[in-house]
Amino acid sequence: MEDRDLQARASLKEVIQRIYEQLEDGTIPYLELPIRTKRNIELADEENVWTYGKNTITRSAKTTKGAYQLLKTTYLCELLIKDHLEQKKSSTLREIYYISENWKHAKFNEQQESDRLIEDLEIITGLRREDFHVRPEENGATIFGPLRLKETTKRGERIIHCQEDVGEAGYQIPYNVENIEFLEHDAQLIIAVETGGMQDRLIENGFDEKYNALLIHLKGQPARSTRRLIKRLNTELQLPVAVFTDGDPWSYRIYASVAYGAIKTAHLSEEMATPAAKFLGVQPRDIIEYDLSTDRLTNQDIKALHNELTDPRFNTPYWNEEIKLQLKLGKKAEQQAFAGKGLNYVTDTYLPARLTELGLIKR
Amino acid sequence: MEDRDLQARASLKEVIQRIYEQLEDGTIPYLELPIRTKRNIELADEENVWTYGKNTITRSAKTTKGAYQLLKTTYLCELLIKDHLEQKKSSTLREIYYISENWKHAKFNEQQESDRLIEDLEIITGLRREDFHVRPEENGATIFGPLRLKETTKRGERIIHCQEDVGEAGYQIPYNVENIEFLEHDAQLIIAVETGGMQDRLIENGFDEKYNALLIHLKGQPARSTRRLIKRLNTELQLPVAVFTDGDPWSYRIYASVAYGAIKTAHLSEEMATPAAKFLGVQPRDIIEYDLSTDRLTNQDIKALHNELTDPRFNTPYWNEEIKLQLKLGKKAEQQAFAGKGLNYVTDTYLPARLTELGLIKR
Repeated sequence: MEDRDLQARASLKEVIQRIYEQLEDGTIPYLELPIRTKRNIELADEENVWTYGKNTITRSAKTTKGAYQLLKTTYLCELLIKDHLEQKKSSTLREIYYISENWKHAKFNEQQESDRLIEDLEIITGLRREDFHVRPEENGATIFGPLRLKETTKRGERIIHCQEDVGEAGYQIPYNVENIEFLEHDAQLIIAVETGGMQDRLIENGFDEKYNALLIHLKGQPARSTRRLIKRLNTELQLPVAVFTDGDPWSYRIYASVAYGAIKTAHLSEEMATPAAKFLGVQPRDIIEYDLSTDRLTNQDIKALHNELTDPRFNTPYWNEEIKLQLKLGKKAEQQAFAGKGLNYVTDTYLPARLTELGLIKR
Repeated sequence: MEDRDLQARASLKEVIQRIYEQLEDGTIPYLELPIRTKRNIELADEENVWTYGKNTITRSAKTTKGAYQLLKTTYLCELLIKDHLEQKKSSTLREIYYISENWKHAKFNEQQESDRLIEDLEIITGLRREDFHVRPEENGATIFGPLRLKETTKRGERIIHCQEDVGEAGYQIPYNVENIEFLEHDAQLIIAVETGGMQDRLIENGFDEKYNALLIHLKGQPARSTRRLIKRLNTELQLPVAVFTDGDPWSYRIYASVAYGAIKTAHLSEEMATPAAKFLGVQPRDIIEYDLSTDRLTNQDIKALHNELTDPRFNTPYWNEEIKLQLKLGKKAEQQAFAGKGLNYVTDTYLPARLTELGLIKR
């Protein structure tokens, strides 16, 4: 077994060991977990990312519900230890829900339940579900740029250059990016792009070559693997990160989940959030400055913008100003809107200007 | 310019030429197109795929609306000829909508309008929008299996083996699969899979190696590029195709769009539909035969199943029996449900049994 698998197995066995010892002492077994609600989320100062607060909940076998929870947890640990780690298998979250069919009293009533227990194990062990070989149902986004990496696959090692060894659509990010080792690169910065259409535009216009940029497709709300890869590229290769999205409240949340982490995965923020990531645009002020064609804000948009004004992640002078400006304008703009100025405008004019403002390139 | 680009340019110029000549003759310019409604769809016997019928509509400049349509068509042709084909550029459907901003009276009011005019040009020229370098907003699915191909990219030619030169996530299908040339392969058959989770399962279990199968991810309703690639693999390499989806009415439609074509792209069915594609499952009868865990049919499911009973594409004894059985059972099953029998069951038991029944492998 690989070291990472051995470590994961040890951590899971500890969980079982703890329950076992509680039973031996005659204590009614229990697990302690942080409460996972918005109210127990805080910004970890030093890291400047979202993490859970001090409030914990005790899941004890004193209640029938708690007893079932612990039973299911032990079955789940057995699956992850015996089938996944020892037999080098993996399952999707959906498959795990079905696998529990044969667990009698430990059968999950719905996938939500198994998903949550897997997150519990992440919190207890301080590992990620990927370390337990647990996959999402659909796979990740793509990366294109001057980076040569080595991916350890079940079929052996693959060395791939993300410009020279891939097709036009780029290199597909695997579900577990810990299997990736960065070999060499000429990259100066990372640009994380919301839509595939814009990533294709930057590739077609040769932006990755001209600015030695790694272009990463966020695909809307980015998958865990995508956020983790950005974090690793930022910390291990010291590459600055700029996030390029549409100019609407939902896209600002995409930026926030890359930079500060998402509430659902707050226990993993240290590993997945990239506080150094900068918001490139589309900024509300760009709507005026670049005279972009826009759509009117819907009521949901307006509601979301007001929520963001009270969201600590956006509690900065910059975001305050931009969000209030957008509410005043009553408009939003897509990143594709630059096409109205010609297909090269975004790469020849807008991005160089913004990246210079952000101090990521020198004119 | 490449031959394919030269041909596309010539076809588009013909469209303009026709309008030009009409103006010269003093005829009020017009274009003739097939009516594109369900009522004008028919099953082309010899091909056994969906195509448009004889009913046509004339788009004439006699009406203001028609005049605007023709004006927009000419602007669109200019973009595709001058920017796309002559300058080797491409745009997404969304970008084209924005580009029209500067076309004054020819500006598109909404993307639907530009999308439809692009489809019109496909019908008139008999080409595909990919031939005009028009891209969708999000990119395609992946393929994994014993196939070496050559993709001609803007950065030059890339030779990629879809097992040995790709990561665990496989080879990303580009938007224009005409840029792909099949070099060599050991494939015996193609399995098109609805969910990424099941494609990953087959890869992890080595199904592609054991049965020399090309595993193609459909990603729900398959993109044009995916359907076109399946068609090319089927006709050029004479590889049989089996479609593996969930067991519900929406998944049967996924199969139908692969095998018979979709109504929205009926004008391209000859190029994109693979009538030889067989439905592998999940079949309603499998719910009983394999005692799969199920969900109850929703009212929408039941409605969709009844619609399919009147859909000529499903007007066969097999589908009649299966759909009626499913309505009787009142249940549906996902392809992940096989995980309840163990992670190897689907590859060791179900697929070999079904592929033998379909005559695609010999036991």
